[in-house]
Amino acid sequence: MNYFSSDFKLGILGGGQLGKMLLTDTRKFDIQTYVLDPSEEAPCKIGSNKFFKGDLMDFDTVYNFGKQVDVLTFEIEHVNVSALAKLETEGVKVYPSAATLKLIQNKGRQKDFYVKNNIPTADYKHFEALTRLEAAVEDNEVTLPFVWKSTQFGYDGNGVRVIRSIQDFDGLPNVECIAEKMIPFKNELAVIVTRTPSGEIKTYPVVEMEFHPEANQVEYVICPARIDATVAEKARAIALKVSEKFNHVGLLAVEMFQTEDDEILVNEVAPRPHNSGHYSIEASYTSQFEQHLRAILNLPLGNTDSKAAGIMVNLVGAEGHTGDVVYKNIEKILGKNGVTPHIYGKKQTRPFRKMGHVTIVNEDITEARRIAEEVKNTIKVISN
Amino acid sequence: MNYFSSDFKLGILGGGQLGKMLLTDTRKFDIQTYVLDPSEEAPCKIGSNKFFKGDLMDFDTVYNFGKQVDVLTFEIEHVNVSALAKLETEGVKVYPSAATLKLIQNKGRQKDFYVKNNIPTADYKHFEALTRLEAAVEDNEVTLPFVWKSTQFGYDGNGVRVIRSIQDFDGLPNVECIAEKMIPFKNELAVIVTRTPSGEIKTYPVVEMEFHPEANQVEYVICPARIDATVAEKARAIALKVSEKFNHVGLLAVEMFQTEDDEILVNEVAPRPHNSGHYSIEASYTSQFEQHLRAILNLPLGNTDSKAAGIMVNLVGAEGHTGDVVYKNIEKILGKNGVTPHIYGKKQTRPFRKMGHVTIVNEDITEARRIAEEVKNTIKVISN
Repeated sequence: MNYFSSDFKLGILGGGQLGKMLLTDTRKFDIQTYVLDPSEEAPCKIGSNKFFKGDLMDFDTVYNFGKQVDVLTFEIEHVNVSALAKLETEGVKVYPSAATLKLIQNKGRQKDFYVKNNIPTADYKHFEALTRLEAAVEDNEVTLPFVWKSTQFGYDGNGVRVIRSIQDFDGLPNVECIAEKMIPFKNELAVIVTRTPSGEIKTYPVVEMEFHPEANQVEYVICPARIDATVAEKARAIALKVSEKFNHVGLLAVEMFQTEDDEILVNEVAPRPHNSGHYSIEASYTSQFEQHLRAILNLPLGNTDSKAAGIMVNLVGAEGHTGDVVYKNIEKILGKNGVTPHIYGKKQTRPFRKMGHVTIVNEDITEARRIAEEVKNTIKVISN
Repeated sequence: MNYFSSDFKLGILGGGQLGKMLLTDTRKFDIQTYVLDPSEEAPCKIGSNKFFKGDLMDFDTVYNFGKQVDVLTFEIEHVNVSALAKLETEGVKVYPSAATLKLIQNKGRQKDFYVKNNIPTADYKHFEALTRLEAAVEDNEVTLPFVWKSTQFGYDGNGVRVIRSIQDFDGLPNVECIAEKMIPFKNELAVIVTRTPSGEIKTYPVVEMEFHPEANQVEYVICPARIDATVAEKARAIALKVSEKFNHVGLLAVEMFQTEDDEILVNEVAPRPHNSGHYSIEASYTSQFEQHLRAILNLPLGNTDSKAAGIMVNLVGAEGHTGDVVYKNIEKILGKNGVTPHIYGKKQTRPFRKMGHVTIVNEDITEARRIAEEVKNTIKVISN
């Protein structure tokens, strides 16, 4: 197949920042792209060859879009899976597949899959509805505290809550859910695995999510993780096993806990480019976005090693600011060594909205971490 | 000034591959771009916020385009300088300036400038027309052999010819020209210098153009150049002096000869992103394109050091092939370590047309050079 400067068309469901960063690489390779997104202001409107406005959960919209392309991928999991399945039967290559996505879209099914495949994960119970979980708590079948997770449509902390008392159920939707054992962990780690239709597999180094000591919010994604080599090796091996069992094509970001006694438990996966891999644009020989493209086009995978240490800081909207965005002090962080801001192109900021990220690259990880903290304390995403 | 996700508009004259690679960084920073190019099929049609078709040499076209933007830059020197000058007087920031461009556009004026500013360059004589040069040869004021250069509109070997006998004048246009002494050189080197309106200056490492032993054609651009540190230091110092004398804003690529006795002579300059800096996209902390953007927006300049050794191989159309392009064996080169192809997006190939380039990045420059040769011998730009 000839992808480069040809009539070949890659379809992308979702036109947000992940799609936008993927378009950097489709442009680099001059691969034609069609993008579907519900918003007329989607970041992918620029940089795609053709942009379509439409509902990603609507069967006909996704189906009709998919019929126009040769290979279909997505940058967001909330898409109509039935349309993907039908497109597959009609010869459109959908990567990751409808079956993989269906399994992953539902956190209950995902957890059941880990258990079935002997992949270590935190203990949990799966409930059809919140009322069933509440009854189980009353009957002492589930003991407090635990983590409630909606099985579907969770996103960036939505759909997850720590339940310490019955009162914490207040306001939760009565939907399918799981109750997961709380894991005291040392580190939250992630490994990105890529797999091609031919079965070539490569893993990226283990990254570490460093949390704010009080706010319980990821502050830095650090590559490589500052952990023992044996623990890193174990995490990479488990991620590889997860990938093989899913039999997926494209990127799979595997999020894991390193427990107090150095066990590795799989938390959840995302079958697409992932926040934990953004550092790779500057730090790796092959960025996760180029790697995803290589994978879904069944091209040879690139080198996943790092050229230097990389740290990523998310740029989220500051509290108390809603409106036209201003990146305050961005010129100051540009003056620091090895600093690259990525601005996603959302015109409006609001508290905690993901507006961009900054990568810090340095030969010395300690120096990178020092600069990352300066960056974090300098730039502010506010409204004007 | 707020450039990021704002109403600020950057205008780019020329929508070819250099513009396309610049758009990678304007997209990364979400800076709005307007692009003007004569071809409806220009690579920058995708990735710019607004694309205009028009003649870059036409005063009104360039002027009217420039009136719509806040800062104006160019990716090609052949643009209407009078329009730039008028725009400057009306408050549009033009970087590099009309004066810098005017000086550089004419190779005769450029050479006169080096002499005036005590910058080492090969001896030459400047003629108003070819007939004057022919007369000078007849009168033995100019001795054979020498290099004839048209003072204007030379490009990629066009407008340059080695004159060994009177017969070699055949077919040359009767235009303003220079006759330059032939320099036996060890190496052709280049240094990219960047300067901001505030006067911050940074140089990239010295790169080396490795020529094919028979074809007298650049095969590899290698960073860092495999030369003595003292020679590299001298080349960098001279490039810095050239930059300071030009007082330019933005990138300036300074091409130089290293003579047999390790003298450095300035050959010519280009006030824009340059082929000799393409390696920087993968190998440097800051790519030349991001650096150009930082410079013309008067932002702090980025680190010009390399993360690894980088080698660039141009992808030009193979002889005997004209028509719809096919990148034969591209999947094979993608399987090699640290290899990134850049496909410029020209649908039609023809012999020697610049269609793309490939960067090879490796910790070890010898290994990078070995892989570069494999790449060169593997990929072919043909028609289907």
